[in-house]
Amino acid sequence: MDSNSVSPMPELAPIAEFDKSPPSPPNEEVPMDDLPPPPATISQPEGKTKLQRTRSYDSEDTERGACEWCEYALVITLATVLLLGVSGLTVFWILYYREGFGWADDIPEKQFNLHPALMVAGFVTFSGFSVLLYRICRCLRRIYVKLLHAIFHALAMPCIVIGFLAVLDFHNKKGINNFYSLHSWIGLTAMGLFGLQYAVGFFSFLLLLICSKGTAGFRASLVPVHAAFGVLTFVLGVAACLTGLTEKALFTIGNETYASMSEESIVMNAIGVSIVGVAIVVLYTVRGTGGHRTRTVAAQHPS
Amino acid sequence: MDSNSVSPMPELAPIAEFDKSPPSPPNEEVPMDDLPPPPATISQPEGKTKLQRTRSYDSEDTERGACEWCEYALVITLATVLLLGVSGLTVFWILYYREGFGWADDIPEKQFNLHPALMVAGFVTFSGFSVLLYRICRCLRRIYVKLLHAIFHALAMPCIVIGFLAVLDFHNKKGINNFYSLHSWIGLTAMGLFGLQYAVGFFSFLLLLICSKGTAGFRASLVPVHAAFGVLTFVLGVAACLTGLTEKALFTIGNETYASMSEESIVMNAIGVSIVGVAIVVLYTVRGTGGHRTRTVAAQHPS
Repeated sequence: MDSNSVSPMPELAPIAEFDKSPPSPPNEEVPMDDLPPPPATISQPEGKTKLQRTRSYDSEDTERGACEWCEYALVITLATVLLLGVSGLTVFWILYYREGFGWADDIPEKQFNLHPALMVAGFVTFSGFSVLLYRICRCLRRIYVKLLHAIFHALAMPCIVIGFLAVLDFHNKKGINNFYSLHSWIGLTAMGLFGLQYAVGFFSFLLLLICSKGTAGFRASLVPVHAAFGVLTFVLGVAACLTGLTEKALFTIGNETYASMSEESIVMNAIGVSIVGVAIVVLYTVRGTGGHRTRTVAAQHPS
Repeated sequence: MDSNSVSPMPELAPIAEFDKSPPSPPNEEVPMDDLPPPPATISQPEGKTKLQRTRSYDSEDTERGACEWCEYALVITLATVLLLGVSGLTVFWILYYREGFGWADDIPEKQFNLHPALMVAGFVTFSGFSVLLYRICRCLRRIYVKLLHAIFHALAMPCIVIGFLAVLDFHNKKGINNFYSLHSWIGLTAMGLFGLQYAVGFFSFLLLLICSKGTAGFRASLVPVHAAFGVLTFVLGVAACLTGLTEKALFTIGNETYASMSEESIVMNAIGVSIVGVAIVVLYTVRGTGGHRTRTVAAQHPS
């Protein structure tokens, strides 16, 4: 058994179910400060002790370790390419086909252009990086991972707010009604959830650390709720982007040009496909999050 | 400890991580015939034996049991209402606002109307029921659950095929290009994955039962792949429905009427919102599926 084979994706799925696991590897000291401390050690029949919350390793450790590192590297590379690519492609589309950005009264369309670019940046790129970092960062202390998670969401927030104001003001300037489409309903819900999640997350997982011990139980019970609503917000953001792209294609390129597979149609569809790709990678990395709740409950009641 | 407190949602998340669990309750005999038999019993320090793959119960068993049954009842009720409601609402929309269905040359629009109704029925209602049944059916033998899963997907298949042919033939009759939109790209991918999943699932999890023991390892290793691609297919189906609804609203109701929040706009948006609701409930029930793989691996290598 190789004690250095540290799995790179720590909490994707609780896998110590058939636990015959070795002691925690040396560098597995990630403080789980939202979880109550596990009931430390239990005695084994052989007289050894072991940490209860460790990964299970078996006779094929080295090979599994290598596979997991490959998966880790692949997910990070793919995610980075897609997350940066989708915003890059959106900016390219607007600069090359839609005359760029602006906030002047004479060309309100340039102001509208801020909407797709900023919403994709906020709901997909920054939010996606934030979720991914939280799931895959292993080498950093937990508090730094949480700060990174908060910072990336903090970067997403002005994007979403300005992106929202851009389209609201554009509609008002052009005399177009607001909040009538499925896109806007989904987007509004996603924005509301985003704000709520940020406020609750910031208060609970950062501010309440001032009284770390006293709030451990509350914070632990909030983790799975925050995770579930986080995934929901992300998925709603993606759905809003896809319906928004469809609307924009039909409004601006027009039905017939869109149907003739113009260059711009293909670029816009490529943006949509990239967003779907991002969603797949992010949902893949957060799979098994549901196990968290039960582990927390079990940790609180170690029988 | 109440040995009758059987959790109603069996495999949502592996929760025996801190396993100090009692013997499996009497009626917990769900044959896991895609998984190799667990390494039965291991001896405990106290001289007792226990099943390794059991749920962990603690001193608050009765309360937790009641909570889980409440959750179970709520999920089933909500899912049934949403899954039937979304198809009912789509049929109502078409009958009341879009002149109903047909397959005649004189009114091709009636033929098009089959497309949204059948796609929603196939990708959302039948597929949704199929996934839910597989996750929440506990009282039935595993093989019957698998057959129900296969039957509901078999019901979805003609809906999807006829729904696809309806729009293809409509486009050809009207001289409209095919496969140009983001909606069509996402929908095509979803259809391809659906067919592939059905073929692989039928062959692997039903036909290969002929040689049950010899194929146990292969089937067990395929379960998490099938589950992951199943969720992906469902999510892509939902994304196709949402982008399709947006397209249809702009094509048929028209931009200005849609923006004026006509009755029909609200009905169409309500269909979209219901589809999002279905997606949330289904994703909620399949959360933690990612844990499956690891359990399987651990079961194969009990070390």
